[in-house]
Amino acid sequence: MSLPRIGITLGDPGGIGPEIVVKSLSSSPSLPEAHYIIFGSSAVLEEEEKYLGVSINSSRISLKEVPTRLVTVRKGAAYKENGLASFLFFEEAVKAAQKGEIQALVTAPISKRSWNLSGILWRGHTEYLQQFYPEAIMAFWSEKIKVALLSHHLPLKEALGRIRKNILLEFFRILCRSVERAMPGKYEYLVAGLNPHAGEAGILGNEEKDEIIPAVEEARRQGLKISGPYPPDIVFRMALGHSDTIVIALYHDQGLIAFKLEAFDLGVNVTLGMPFIRSSPDHGTAFDIAGKRMASPQSMIEAIKLAVDLSSGSF
Amino acid sequence: MSLPRIGITLGDPGGIGPEIVVKSLSSSPSLPEAHYIIFGSSAVLEEEEKYLGVSINSSRISLKEVPTRLVTVRKGAAYKENGLASFLFFEEAVKAAQKGEIQALVTAPISKRSWNLSGILWRGHTEYLQQFYPEAIMAFWSEKIKVALLSHHLPLKEALGRIRKNILLEFFRILCRSVERAMPGKYEYLVAGLNPHAGEAGILGNEEKDEIIPAVEEARRQGLKISGPYPPDIVFRMALGHSDTIVIALYHDQGLIAFKLEAFDLGVNVTLGMPFIRSSPDHGTAFDIAGKRMASPQSMIEAIKLAVDLSSGSF
Repeated sequence: MSLPRIGITLGDPGGIGPEIVVKSLSSSPSLPEAHYIIFGSSAVLEEEEKYLGVSINSSRISLKEVPTRLVTVRKGAAYKENGLASFLFFEEAVKAAQKGEIQALVTAPISKRSWNLSGILWRGHTEYLQQFYPEAIMAFWSEKIKVALLSHHLPLKEALGRIRKNILLEFFRILCRSVERAMPGKYEYLVAGLNPHAGEAGILGNEEKDEIIPAVEEARRQGLKISGPYPPDIVFRMALGHSDTIVIALYHDQGLIAFKLEAFDLGVNVTLGMPFIRSSPDHGTAFDIAGKRMASPQSMIEAIKLAVDLSSGSF
Repeated sequence: MSLPRIGITLGDPGGIGPEIVVKSLSSSPSLPEAHYIIFGSSAVLEEEEKYLGVSINSSRISLKEVPTRLVTVRKGAAYKENGLASFLFFEEAVKAAQKGEIQALVTAPISKRSWNLSGILWRGHTEYLQQFYPEAIMAFWSEKIKVALLSHHLPLKEALGRIRKNILLEFFRILCRSVERAMPGKYEYLVAGLNPHAGEAGILGNEEKDEIIPAVEEARRQGLKISGPYPPDIVFRMALGHSDTIVIALYHDQGLIAFKLEAFDLGVNVTLGMPFIRSSPDHGTAFDIAGKRMASPQSMIEAIKLAVDLSSGSF
């Protein structure tokens, strides 16, 4: 069996991205067996290695040099040149994933503001990917709790418009296919209701009986390990600590209120439903501590491990 | 200064209500100084004392005998006669509160099913109270996190219809008045946004800039210690562990997803915005352990303490 090939972007050079990439890869005995390909610039990478006093030379690690104009890096704030560089690293990595040169892509944090300054108008990694993969699913992963979002950056009223049987069913199928490909039979899926007490048989709302229950029933007929809808204020407690359970949240904050309370700074952001896996640490560029060499690589290491786990069925 | 007079109902006789009332009151050295008036039946109370082998005789405790047909109590399920008895206990206690004979009312759990069997069609305590006090506010209280709900048992779509400047402002004023009466200046209030990232200046929804921000600004002009709106997936983390902070949630599950994750079985349910305080433990009748004498009175004791604290300004 050949080793998986995992792409890693350096993220915004002015943030903690390069630092956590170098720290993660220099702790490589604790990382799973894989070929790691860094998408970035040698100027940024070498500066970071020098400051940290470590080297990530290894036969398992290579650099895909992405041309940028960066010579020295300004840290600690959003800068135009950093925005452009981090976009180019990412764009190049996505191309490699689309050509099948890597099976998964782990992205260090970018700054939306840096992207904006350089004229890049995407909100972030996920929105860029959705132009190619409109069915891409945003999910949040931790040992303690796992959440997949039916919708994310939509006004709540618009998100409610997506609670439709056919949309739900399609989401369930894409989510399950994406996860099951790597780990068949491992996970079960709990669907959150939309209304208080999951609608209480229609007394507190009709979406459950008109849309959600029919979608769950059809999904079960098709063999998916899905159940629900459960009361939204109960379903996350049901899943808590059950590492083989994924909660399907029907809108951004339903899932993220729970996830951020239970797994803040421990979680991994993962994009499913694409031909390749994309994961990232669940934190931002942390400009306030950038360049101070005090960033923890823990979430990045978890993102790398998850990328390897979830891509194991795809090559 | 005279002692506060606190009413306590026995709840559904078939559940753990009588048990946790007796256990709480027999631990009375740990309860605050107050006159406690039990609304219930001597048949139920004495049976419970006998089984538990404790007596709650004390000059601070009295029984308001409410006539029922109960002779012996059937435990462990919903029964018509228990439903009627628990409703009569509650109704009598509310009347006493309305007459000013008690300053606060602590309710042991009732069973909606038992109420239904006896022809009582209210959903529960809060809904009964809202016929007299339509502005009553449902809030959830624990050391770790406190949440007040703008709306509760409404379909989510209807709850969104209540996100209006004038409704919000009125809610803020009633909530603050109700809390400040007992503890002036103690609390600050954080308002959750409605949309992802609190709308991100209108990109992800308009309710924040059209309704919520104007309501918060007006409330601040009127001197209320209110701020926000904050991103819904951040605001509960901001409040966590700050015992003087109350989060204002805009709909049932926004508040209760967070509360039930952080304070399950530790919390107290409290109804504010009425001339008297009503509190209750944050659990149900627990029919499965009723009659087994293993119920913890902890949440009931917390409910009693909170009732005393919050009623201290009202007599």
